[in-house]
Amino acid sequence: MKLSRLGEFGLINDVIVPEFKALVSKNFTGIGDDCSIIPVNANLSHIFTTDMLVEKTHFLRDKITPYQLGFKSLAVNLSDIAAMGGAPTASYLSVGFTPDLEVEWVEEFLKGYKDLSEKENVPLLGGDTTSSEDGIVINVGVEGEISPDRIKLRSAAREGDVICVTGMLGDSAGGLQCILEDIPGSSETQSLYQQHLSPWPHVSEGRWLAAHEGVNAMIDVSDGVGSDLKHILKASGKQATVELESFPISDELIKLSRKYDWNPFKLAVSGGEDYVLLLTVNADHYDDTAQSFQHYFSKPLYAIGRISGGKPQIRFQHNGKEVSNLNKGYSHFRE
Amino acid sequence: MKLSRLGEFGLINDVIVPEFKALVSKNFTGIGDDCSIIPVNANLSHIFTTDMLVEKTHFLRDKITPYQLGFKSLAVNLSDIAAMGGAPTASYLSVGFTPDLEVEWVEEFLKGYKDLSEKENVPLLGGDTTSSEDGIVINVGVEGEISPDRIKLRSAAREGDVICVTGMLGDSAGGLQCILEDIPGSSETQSLYQQHLSPWPHVSEGRWLAAHEGVNAMIDVSDGVGSDLKHILKASGKQATVELESFPISDELIKLSRKYDWNPFKLAVSGGEDYVLLLTVNADHYDDTAQSFQHYFSKPLYAIGRISGGKPQIRFQHNGKEVSNLNKGYSHFRE
Repeated sequence: MKLSRLGEFGLINDVIVPEFKALVSKNFTGIGDDCSIIPVNANLSHIFTTDMLVEKTHFLRDKITPYQLGFKSLAVNLSDIAAMGGAPTASYLSVGFTPDLEVEWVEEFLKGYKDLSEKENVPLLGGDTTSSEDGIVINVGVEGEISPDRIKLRSAAREGDVICVTGMLGDSAGGLQCILEDIPGSSETQSLYQQHLSPWPHVSEGRWLAAHEGVNAMIDVSDGVGSDLKHILKASGKQATVELESFPISDELIKLSRKYDWNPFKLAVSGGEDYVLLLTVNADHYDDTAQSFQHYFSKPLYAIGRISGGKPQIRFQHNGKEVSNLNKGYSHFRE
Repeated sequence: MKLSRLGEFGLINDVIVPEFKALVSKNFTGIGDDCSIIPVNANLSHIFTTDMLVEKTHFLRDKITPYQLGFKSLAVNLSDIAAMGGAPTASYLSVGFTPDLEVEWVEEFLKGYKDLSEKENVPLLGGDTTSSEDGIVINVGVEGEISPDRIKLRSAAREGDVICVTGMLGDSAGGLQCILEDIPGSSETQSLYQQHLSPWPHVSEGRWLAAHEGVNAMIDVSDGVGSDLKHILKASGKQATVELESFPISDELIKLSRKYDWNPFKLAVSGGEDYVLLLTVNADHYDDTAQSFQHYFSKPLYAIGRISGGKPQIRFQHNGKEVSNLNKGYSHFRE
């Protein structure tokens, strides 16, 4: 059987996890959450995450600037640290660069990586540089630390929890759509491009939320809120009802969706790469948490649904009505 | 300027290190040794290393079995942990696989990776799996731990130290030579292939040496003993005299060198990928250390030269005579 038929999740869940399970100590957390967790002592756990970006699979060289690529390579990893509620302590950068690259390109790439490193105060402590004839490859690893009692796992969602996100959904997918459809540039496309090409990891939000009572499960939105919520539901053994009309959709995405008859909910649910945090909050703590969050970050903690009992699946609703097909265009959902 | 002109060390030393220096805390060790070092407490430091293997640059798919590739991907990283004197605690594996790969190929790759993981008792705690259209890419990261007073740095070589290695030199380069020259198979070529394709990381040796008084600088031999010794000399500000006749060269490499007029010393000095440890030992402690090493590992700790004062360079000698050109064939050095 070809690997392409097995797919990424098949490879991880059916081959890698069962093969390597036996070596993992009971107090370690391995594959299956946003980061691995190694306990150091009663007050400190060590966490780690790594992501590989391959040219043509994850980016096209003529559609992203080297600065943006450097920024994003680190951002997607910091987002995984954020999803555990952790603080990043160091990063490692491996690059396979094509020999024909200009040194200026590499300098711009490093500038993007460095600017985000500085903003989040994360030192680059190592890595590897090599030649890759057939395309650029980037692998970043980030380590972080967290107090064991603050770790936010995917498996911690409870019945009745409010499902929340820390920022807009679908903008990144909209940005990709603009690139793929060659949509003419405007202030709206610029805003979506920005989300797609230079996503801002919600590290501060993650740490703040991890320190607040009532926050249960957490994950970052990398595959799309639909797919990532399913990870929480599977790990927690719960069901979710999601209200599409509560989704935080930007004005820019609404405008472009109207113009090109996109379905912004579909982009939000399955587009991915938003790198906001998706979390579940105990209903009794939600009002208080949302108010404090608004006060601290000057932006809302958006409630988009509820956790319930039942088999792991998402029920989508729009203004109280069940939605079975998200593939219809914007006009279908227009009020 | 094209990146190919700047080269790997140029990119690291001239661009990356100066750009990122400011963010590294004073008590952290970043780029410039085999691993990064983050102090945890008085008894524990956390170390980390990462290496990227790219198809065509580091391996040819039809010259290495997937099992060997999996084994080697982890081995080269464990070797860096060994070079610090550390104990590996976890590994992370990112793979970019071409979609046309057979699942059996991937399973064999993972089997090689797992067999070494089991032998060294290192759990796989995470990673990334992705598609890479234009060739296989592998990035492995390994974290480890060590007591701060046992860390072996490149910069610790002292005048008068005996330079030692923990195993044969040049076999891996000889194996590569066999592959490149399509040398017909024999028991000798098999032995060299084994060293080249499935190098055994000297983790136990590294930990044992780190615990022994008198062991100063240490590094693993990945680029060739010439190049790696220079890293020690530069970091320590010292000079070295190396006696080629003391080099541990295997009978197999000698036989093939005779037959094909290779220079085994050249292969040993600049071939690389031996993944033995190269260290300097205080002369007063050398006899005792070598005896205990022989007793514990049932193999010698080979002395190959001496550290002296002076600018960082290596003086090669053969039976007391200066050797200025290592490019001559085997016959030139035959006694």
